[in-house]
Amino acid sequence: MRILLVGAHGTIGRAVAEQLAPRHELITAGRHSGDLRIDLTDFASVQQALRDAGPLDAVIAAAGNLHFAPLADFTPAQYGIGLADKLMGQVHLVLAGQHVLRDGGSFTLTSGILTDEPIRNGSSASMVNSALEGYARAAAIELPRGLRINVVSPNVLVESLPAYGPFFSGFEAVPAARVAQAYVRSVEGAQTGRVYRVH
Amino acid sequence: MRILLVGAHGTIGRAVAEQLAPRHELITAGRHSGDLRIDLTDFASVQQALRDAGPLDAVIAAAGNLHFAPLADFTPAQYGIGLADKLMGQVHLVLAGQHVLRDGGSFTLTSGILTDEPIRNGSSASMVNSALEGYARAAAIELPRGLRINVVSPNVLVESLPAYGPFFSGFEAVPAARVAQAYVRSVEGAQTGRVYRVH
Ligand SMILES: NC(=O)c1ccc[n+]([C@@H]2O[C@H](COP(=O)([O-])OP(=O)(O)OC[C@H]3O[C@@H](n4cnc5c(N)ncnc54)[C@H](OP(=O)(O)O)[C@@H]3O)[C@@H](O)[C@H]2O)c1
Ligand SMILES: NC(=O)c1ccc[n+]([C@@H]2O[C@H](COP(=O)([O-])OP(=O)(O)OC[C@H]3O[C@@H](n4cnc5c(N)ncnc54)[C@H](OP(=O)(O)O)[C@@H]3O)[C@@H](O)[C@H]2O)c1
Repeated sequence: MRILLVGAHGTIGRAVAEQLAPRHELITAGRHSGDLRIDLTDFASVQQALRDAGPLDAVIAAAGNLHFAPLADFTPAQYGIGLADKLMGQVHLVLAGQHVLRDGGSFTLTSGILTDEPIRNGSSASMVNSALEGYARAAAIELPRGLRINVVSPNVLVESLPAYGPFFSGFEAVPAARVAQAYVRSVEGAQTGRVYRVH
Repeated sequence: MRILLVGAHGTIGRAVAEQLAPRHELITAGRHSGDLRIDLTDFASVQQALRDAGPLDAVIAAAGNLHFAPLADFTPAQYGIGLADKLMGQVHLVLAGQHVLRDGGSFTLTSGILTDEPIRNGSSASMVNSALEGYARAAAIELPRGLRINVVSPNVLVESLPAYGPFFSGFEAVPAARVAQAYVRSVEGAQTGRVYRVH
């Protein structure tokens, strides 16, 4: 398959690339890295990248930024960061990709464990991850031509503990290689509208 | 209790008001109706309305607009309607209200069955309703002073079938009076972080 992997140079993206590269043709993308430059927050940039990528059988998003802060201090604009970037960034890929993916192609998006297990400072993450999972359930029943869509919900990664460990006290961190398998299952499987929880 | 009911003149809001009015002091609010004028999409308007309302034990949101359209035609801006109105409108109430509600007070927000049961044209509704439910689960663990937050997820209402019936073919519509009981449970109960599904 020809697969566009957005966020290919990130912690998750690198692990996904490693598992898919031996069997598939990968086109890597990021804001500052990869075969293609793409800014997910900019719909025109997403449309352009999909044109530049050529024919595709799968699009994977392993990207998305959002803000962490105590609920007491959160501002509407800070929620806007996650809505514009992690949520709408991935939605942009679906909106543009539905018209250009080959028949039977797939979208695999990324949410996270905070949908199900909230933490302090994580109200934006719980909001955005839940939104992505609900969106995928809904998009799954409307996508044409056998197109599929799934979401991978990783626990905190072992590789990310140095950065996020204190936020995820007591969470059983998972290795990136295990998380990457869920992306492989989504791309190579036949399911749609699924959330693959790697918790 | 002193209860602010936003959307008090709507289909759900009227039924909620009827059940709460005999036992509580209701302050009704809406854009064009009620004791107080409030535009949920405008954070300053929400803050002002909460000041005008005086001391409160509960805030109920029975309001929220979003766009319905086929996935194939949806634009980013159309998703923005639901994010700014039904999602952030209700989040604005929590952000402002957390600082002014009396100890032990509660927020009761409104999502809808499309979180769990998507329909054609409903990808924004599934996104926004899921986001609200995830947000409430997260906010519940951070709210101070015994403040609580729950979400009511109604099925399509019997009273709304003339307007929305064709979208909800085969759904078992529920009467507004039954939906209203879930708001009463949330306000008068002790739970937090719950989704009350009236499906
Ligand atoms: N790491 C974890 O423990 C963990 C756990 C659960 C969920 N997640 C989620 O998984 C996703 C990836 O996490 P990660 O830790 O792998 O992130 P990461 O290491 O920071 O990598 C993110 C990648 O995405 C690209 N990117 C970021 N913003 C972008 C944008 N607006 N447009 C295009 N590309 C963009 C970055 O490349 P450029 O800098 O070149 O743009 C980078 O390659 C995030 O949504 C995160 O919330 C992570
Ligand atoms: N009806 C259903 O079958 C159903 C099923 C599931 C979920 N829901 C959800 O339940 C909520 C209420 O639905 P409904 O059918 O009762 O709606 P409705 O009859 O249209 O009433 C909405 C009420 O909210 C007020 N309102 C609307 N936008 C507002 C804003 N930006 N700021 C402040 N007030 C605003 C309106 O008053 P003004 O015009 O005076 O502003 C009105 O009183 C919505 O979120 C809807 O998605 C409804």
